[in-house]
Amino acid sequence: MSKVFVIAQGGGPTAVINQTVAGAALEARRRYPGSQVLGARHGVRGLRDGHFFDLAALSDGDLKRLADTPNAALGSTRDKPDAAYCARILEQLDAAKADAFIYIGGNDTAGTLQILEKAGGDRMAFIHAPKTIDNDLVENDHTPGFMSAALFVAHAFLSVDLDFSALPGIYVGIVMGRHAGFLTAAAAAWKRGPKSGPHLVYPPEIPFSVEKFVEDVRAARDEYGRCIVAISEGVATDDGRPLIESLLGDALERDPHGNAQLSTGDLGVALQTELGAAFPKARARVDTFGYLPRAFSATVSPGDRREAFEAGAFAVTAAEHGSASIAIGSEKGPGAIRSVPLSAVAGKTRLMPSGFLDPANHMLTAEGRAYFDRMLPPRPDVFSLLDN
Amino acid sequence: MSKVFVIAQGGGPTAVINQTVAGAALEARRRYPGSQVLGARHGVRGLRDGHFFDLAALSDGDLKRLADTPNAALGSTRDKPDAAYCARILEQLDAAKADAFIYIGGNDTAGTLQILEKAGGDRMAFIHAPKTIDNDLVENDHTPGFMSAALFVAHAFLSVDLDFSALPGIYVGIVMGRHAGFLTAAAAAWKRGPKSGPHLVYPPEIPFSVEKFVEDVRAARDEYGRCIVAISEGVATDDGRPLIESLLGDALERDPHGNAQLSTGDLGVALQTELGAAFPKARARVDTFGYLPRAFSATVSPGDRREAFEAGAFAVTAAEHGSASIAIGSEKGPGAIRSVPLSAVAGKTRLMPSGFLDPANHMLTAEGRAYFDRMLPPRPDVFSLLDN
Repeated sequence: MSKVFVIAQGGGPTAVINQTVAGAALEARRRYPGSQVLGARHGVRGLRDGHFFDLAALSDGDLKRLADTPNAALGSTRDKPDAAYCARILEQLDAAKADAFIYIGGNDTAGTLQILEKAGGDRMAFIHAPKTIDNDLVENDHTPGFMSAALFVAHAFLSVDLDFSALPGIYVGIVMGRHAGFLTAAAAAWKRGPKSGPHLVYPPEIPFSVEKFVEDVRAARDEYGRCIVAISEGVATDDGRPLIESLLGDALERDPHGNAQLSTGDLGVALQTELGAAFPKARARVDTFGYLPRAFSATVSPGDRREAFEAGAFAVTAAEHGSASIAIGSEKGPGAIRSVPLSAVAGKTRLMPSGFLDPANHMLTAEGRAYFDRMLPPRPDVFSLLDN
Repeated sequence: MSKVFVIAQGGGPTAVINQTVAGAALEARRRYPGSQVLGARHGVRGLRDGHFFDLAALSDGDLKRLADTPNAALGSTRDKPDAAYCARILEQLDAAKADAFIYIGGNDTAGTLQILEKAGGDRMAFIHAPKTIDNDLVENDHTPGFMSAALFVAHAFLSVDLDFSALPGIYVGIVMGRHAGFLTAAAAAWKRGPKSGPHLVYPPEIPFSVEKFVEDVRAARDEYGRCIVAISEGVATDDGRPLIESLLGDALERDPHGNAQLSTGDLGVALQTELGAAFPKARARVDTFGYLPRAFSATVSPGDRREAFEAGAFAVTAAEHGSASIAIGSEKGPGAIRSVPLSAVAGKTRLMPSGFLDPANHMLTAEGRAYFDRMLPPRPDVFSLLDN
């Protein structure tokens, strides 16, 4: 029996978000031959305005090419629909005679689906397919998109640590992430030993003080001859305000929701100034990774690719049983993907477990390392004479 | 007949500089069994102080592991030896009974070898093996290290263009390079078509004006709905001063040689401010790539790896005929690597040929594209519905 599926992508793109689209489209084709699969252009915005791509018209080959393309191939949006916006979305879904609406995104996306489900859940299924490089969805062991972004960050810190062992100095890499420190902590996933970097990791979950940071850097540099640091762009002072807010004050850029704009170079320049003052003779460099990690075409994780595809396929199956959020467990293979209620995920933020990182030495614990060992392929074999 | 080779790495690390060390050590072992191969710790600094690694003691397997490790495994230095420093280097080389000193680096490195050759060229061969991500050595079609760094930059702009087609806006990526624009121009090597990014490329060879830049961005954004820009950190105003100098004035950081410190986030923040003022409602983001491209472990080019290894092996062969600089030609296979006099390379900077980039539209010409087609593997196949 043929059906009508509508699918959309929301929020920041990832390296594998198109896998989820392709997984859903191919599963719909396999399970319900003759189905319509409509992809909304630029997320709920295209859905509201009736701008669709006909995904059923794509060949299997083109869907596989689409799957392997990083970043959102249907376009995305930052819109957070209010009630009126949701009413227009429902009108479009009704007009399309949709059996299910699959929306790929983070916890805001699940929240939008919850609103839609309240208004129209008797007429179709609203399915949330998980996606976020922040890895901050509750009920999930990890989320599609995260493993690839983490792979970029791990490669970056492996490489920079070798670079700064050749030409010693202080290096700070600032990594995306407003509340959850998983991606920043990935910096230490391939740490080669106690002497090698990163030597310090600052996730947003642990209050940040510039004075303490400078002390930490001094101690690590004295001990190891160099100091490599990973800092989340979202680190906050102990009053809970983002560090960038206390550094920039009124000059701070804010997004339409009033949140501090974090992905600028300002935090980097401010930290560079602090390091220059504290270590006037040292080579100290700060890089803001910015948009590079989130969908870099050379660091797409094969496991991430596979899971994102399976999450899309599972979303189609789950739609038979009504609205749900798809969640990824820690198991491998069948059974790792399951359905949970939208309400279990919507609007909630999962932080990095406190057991993953020891705040006394700003480094992954054995528990944290074990988690990242599951998330990443083995560290590339490197051999440096400077390690001896 | 056994010989004594001394080898050192200078300047910024690259993804393949260790290939050159391994190529030299393995060729010395093959051609002159029983040879000594001494690796200086941290370049000429270790040579001056008598700090060596015994590379002949490494197994073939370990030398191959070392070759595949990005960044300088012997350590590097920014020291530019003066006459007294060179005298101490010569004492150490004499004490080691060196038949040849192979120094891997850029045009400063060739300059140091020229000084040494004048003082001691009757006693041993001084061989310059080329290395620079800037690709700015005369007599070379391209230089080991460049192709890998260019591969990072090409991946970055392919990915960011897709990202900003999904969530439209203005994106500026700032790329390393003081005088030569090759690495910045690599941003456009994988441009998918006239509509896709990067839309504008600003190498240091073409005078830069902030006003003109803002105009260019406005025109591109009006035409394509987004604007992706690659700017070299070394862009200069038409009086020849680095842009960062005119923007920062006295706040500018300088290196020991008095050169403006370019690899900071300051230029990015200044450009972000300009874009914010010119496009107050637009999403405008500036990323400074910083140290990420130069030896990223996930974007090591196979061709670069092979050539860097061959340059090291060739250096050992060339030493039989006296001092020289090793140069890489445009041909493939045997004959592509040759010797030129040190004086032909030392202290000279090769800029990007003016025919590579059209200053009227800030984009690669057919000639420029043909060059980058030789430097990089084919563009990954991507498929986005937004292109249609």
